[in-house]
Parts: sequence; structure tokens; C-alpha cells
Amino acid sequence: MTIWTDPSRFRDEIRKGRFNAPTIGQCPGYTQGNLAILPRDYADEFLRFCRLNPKSCPVIGMTEPGDPRVPELGEIDLRTDFPAYCVFRDGELVDEVTDLHRLWNDELVGFVIGCSLSFEEALQDAGVPVRHISQRTNVPMYNTSMANHRAGRFGGNTVVSMRPMSAAQAIRAVQVTSRFPSVHGAPVHLGDPAAIGIADIESPDYGERSEIRDGEMAVFWACGVTPQQAIRSARPSLAITHKPGYMLVSDIRNSHLAAF
Amino acid sequence: MTIWTDPSRFRDEIRKGRFNAPTIGQCPGYTQGNLAILPRDYADEFLRFCRLNPKSCPVIGMTEPGDPRVPELGEIDLRTDFPAYCVFRDGELVDEVTDLHRLWNDELVGFVIGCSLSFEEALQDAGVPVRHISQRTNVPMYNTSMANHRAGRFGGNTVVSMRPMSAAQAIRAVQVTSRFPSVHGAPVHLGDPAAIGIADIESPDYGERSEIRDGEMAVFWACGVTPQQAIRSARPSLAITHKPGYMLVSDIRNSHLAAF
Repeated sequence: MTIWTDPSRFRDEIRKGRFNAPTIGQCPGYTQGNLAILPRDYADEFLRFCRLNPKSCPVIGMTEPGDPRVPELGEIDLRTDFPAYCVFRDGELVDEVTDLHRLWNDELVGFVIGCSLSFEEALQDAGVPVRHISQRTNVPMYNTSMANHRAGRFGGNTVVSMRPMSAAQAIRAVQVTSRFPSVHGAPVHLGDPAAIGIADIESPDYGERSEIRDGEMAVFWACGVTPQQAIRSARPSLAITHKPGYMLVSDIRNSHLAAF
Repeated sequence: MTIWTDPSRFRDEIRKGRFNAPTIGQCPGYTQGNLAILPRDYADEFLRFCRLNPKSCPVIGMTEPGDPRVPELGEIDLRTDFPAYCVFRDGELVDEVTDLHRLWNDELVGFVIGCSLSFEEALQDAGVPVRHISQRTNVPMYNTSMANHRAGRFGGNTVVSMRPMSAAQAIRAVQVTSRFPSVHGAPVHLGDPAAIGIADIESPDYGERSEIRDGEMAVFWACGVTPQQAIRSARPSLAITHKPGYMLVSDIRNSHLAAF
């Protein structure tokens, strides 16, 4: 696999249809983002939802209605700069595409949402190993009983990702990820999975299982699947997301997201 | 109980022998400190020990040999400004006194060590309740299997204090106490007590039991009893500590200790 290092050159490659794969590992050090595109009417409510639930829905970029550009994140066109997109109508997945020119219209608003890749880089830099990365599996994710704050048609429960670690690593992980509020921030829970409504830690609802070894505890972060679930439940006439793993690489450096 | 608010007036009261009680609750907002006084020969090693074990032994003040003053903490005389002292010879408690004029000599060096009262104030300000404070008991403390880094004759294991809390409170507590590295800082462990060699959480080695309720976990901080244990084990010809609970109130505000 070719590793690209310059975000604008990498996006140009994607724009030209020459890269169609998960973006993990590309442009190390640069912030990757999730996508949600909604009709204007839903977008206003969704922005309120994100503001009320910042740990699961940290908005790092947003377009003006009808304008596919996100200048705050770089010279970006949301219609072309993700390698692949999922198209939902009334909450149902109806198509998977690599370009949104045909679907885009003046009523659409795009949101770019921070993702855990950024804080995972910070964890590893701080000497906290991330099991699913070293095992080359997808992070385990779980539905929980933690209700989101509702805004209009957007509600539902928080989805969390889980990383197993020792207690000392968990303490360090709280410190490290607290510095990154715009990419999910501090954990929302650690220890007993049942306390947040997870019946079987061995069976994630999304992603793949991560083994919890002797002396380790489960550490849970709010996850970007939360807004995707909320969008599907709200059943908007049209919603477009990135294909899971096929993300936007922005011009923002992860280190610039640190709050302190 | 009279609550004093001005540290220098409070110390003057102690100096005149008019206050002989635990100092908890006095001069709210000001940093209180533990005491260790050692002969110069031991003091050099002890300072190295503290530098190697900063979470249990955070030195916030230190005297020049033979000089009982600690100008960095206020107009302080270590011989008179604690309500009561314990005197150890060859590691054994031999006396309890309220004034050190008779014992002081040109070879002695005094250390003032940060204590958990400061971070407990920050926890409560941040909305994290502290069980043993609300129950008006002494904090539970435990010997552990975590070996200190040895410096000369000073070694032994870390002693920890324990505060039970929910997972969400534990995450908040890591954030809050990380800001206070000079008063023990972040927890050293959370969750399973056996992982740090504590066989029975219901039976603390010092202090009093704190109930751990359903949905709570034990959160452990390095404790100021650690250097006291190390000193006793080193068996110096003379060592003087404060009487437990009878501490120095400095002119430093807790809020000024915050690292960020």
C-alpha cells in the first residue's frame, strides 16, 4: 500500500478516482473526519443535536447550505474527496457511490465529524498501546443504555468504542484524550460494561472483538457511529455518509487539536 | 471549632501554643503540608528519594541545613508552626512534642510535602464527592506491592489512599487531579485492588474504611504515608514528622498549584 503524506495531493488522487480503499494510515499526523450530509431542514436540528452531544458528535467542519466546500479544513470538496459514500433514503441504505456530483443540490449541508484515529495516534505517541491497531482488526463498538440528548428528530443512545488496557494505561489514556475534545475527548466509561447497558463485551454490535486480558479493564469512548445511528433513526428523505473507514483527510494536524 | 482564614494569623496562634488539633478545614483554599525533618546526611538521600518518587513524595518546600525557615511557603518556622510533632530515633517513635526548639540543631534539614487535602478541595469544586469527607472519617490507606524507586537507605513500597467513586467520577477525578502534580497528581491505580497487592479492601492498613457502593470502583492515589514509612525503615538516628493530621498551613493557595 502506498502511504501518502500530503493531504491535498492525497485528496487529489481520490478526486481523480485513483484511490478507493480505507484511509487509515494515510497522511500520518493529519486529522481524518467522518461525513454526514443532510437536507437543510434536518441539518439545523442535527447541528443542535451535535452541540448537545459533543463527545459523540464533535463537529470539526461544516458547509454553508448548497456549498460543498469546507475551507476551515483545507481546500476540500465534500462531493469528491472521500473515497466512497453511502446514500440513505428514509433511513435505508440505497446506494454506495464514489462521487456526489449527481446527488448534490442547493439544499444540502455537510458536516465533518472528528474521529478516534486522531486520539489513537496521541495514545500511541504517549506509550499507550491500542490493541485493535496492533492486531489489525476493526475497533469493537457497542450500543449502550446511555441516552443522547434529543434535538428534534435526532435522539437515540450513545454508541461507544472500546479499548482494553491496564489501569495505569487507562489513567494515562484519560489524560491524553482529555486534551482532544474535538475528537471524542475523554472516555465516557471504564470498568464494568453492564453499567452502561452492555450485556456481552465479547460480542460487539459493530467492528470486531478485542481480547481483554488478565489485569486489563475495558475503556469506553463515545463513538462516531452515534450520529450515524441518530441520522438513520430520524429517517431523513436523503442522508449521505462516508463509507465506514473511507474518510476525509484534512489539512489540520492532530497535534493542532490539542486543547492544552 | 473556630475556622481560621488567614494562614499567617493561624500559624501565629499555633506558635503561641493556643491551637492543638487537626488542621483539616482550617484556612480553606490554602495548601497544607506534611513534615519530614532529617539529619543532613540522610536528607541528601531523602531528596533523591523524593525526586525519584514524586507522586508519593511531592516536595513543596525545603529548608537550608540548620535553618528552620521555608520562605517559599510563607514566613514559616518549622520548629513551631505545626500543632504537634512526632519524634523518631532509629525508626522508633519516642516522643510527641509541640515545639522543636529543644531538638533543633545545625545539621537538620526540613521537608514540607504536599498532601491530598489540596486535590480533595479541587475534586469537590469539580463536583466529585469525596466519601470520607462527607462521612467525617479518616481516608482509608493501604500498603501495596508497588515498589518505590530506591535512593540509598530509602526504599520500601508505595502506600496509597483510596476514594470510592463511579466510573464517570473516576474519569473526572483523573482530569482534576492531573492538574495538581505537586499534591500527588493523578491516581496511580483504579479498579481491582489485588492488582496492586491489596488483599482486603475492607481492611485498610491506616485510616478508616470507606464503603464501596454498587456501581463504584476504588480509585487509588499515592499517599504521604509513603515517605513516612520509608523514613522509619531507613532508621535515621533522628527523624521528626508532623503528628498525623496536624499539618502546616502555608501561604500558597491550592489554586496556584494547578499546572494548567
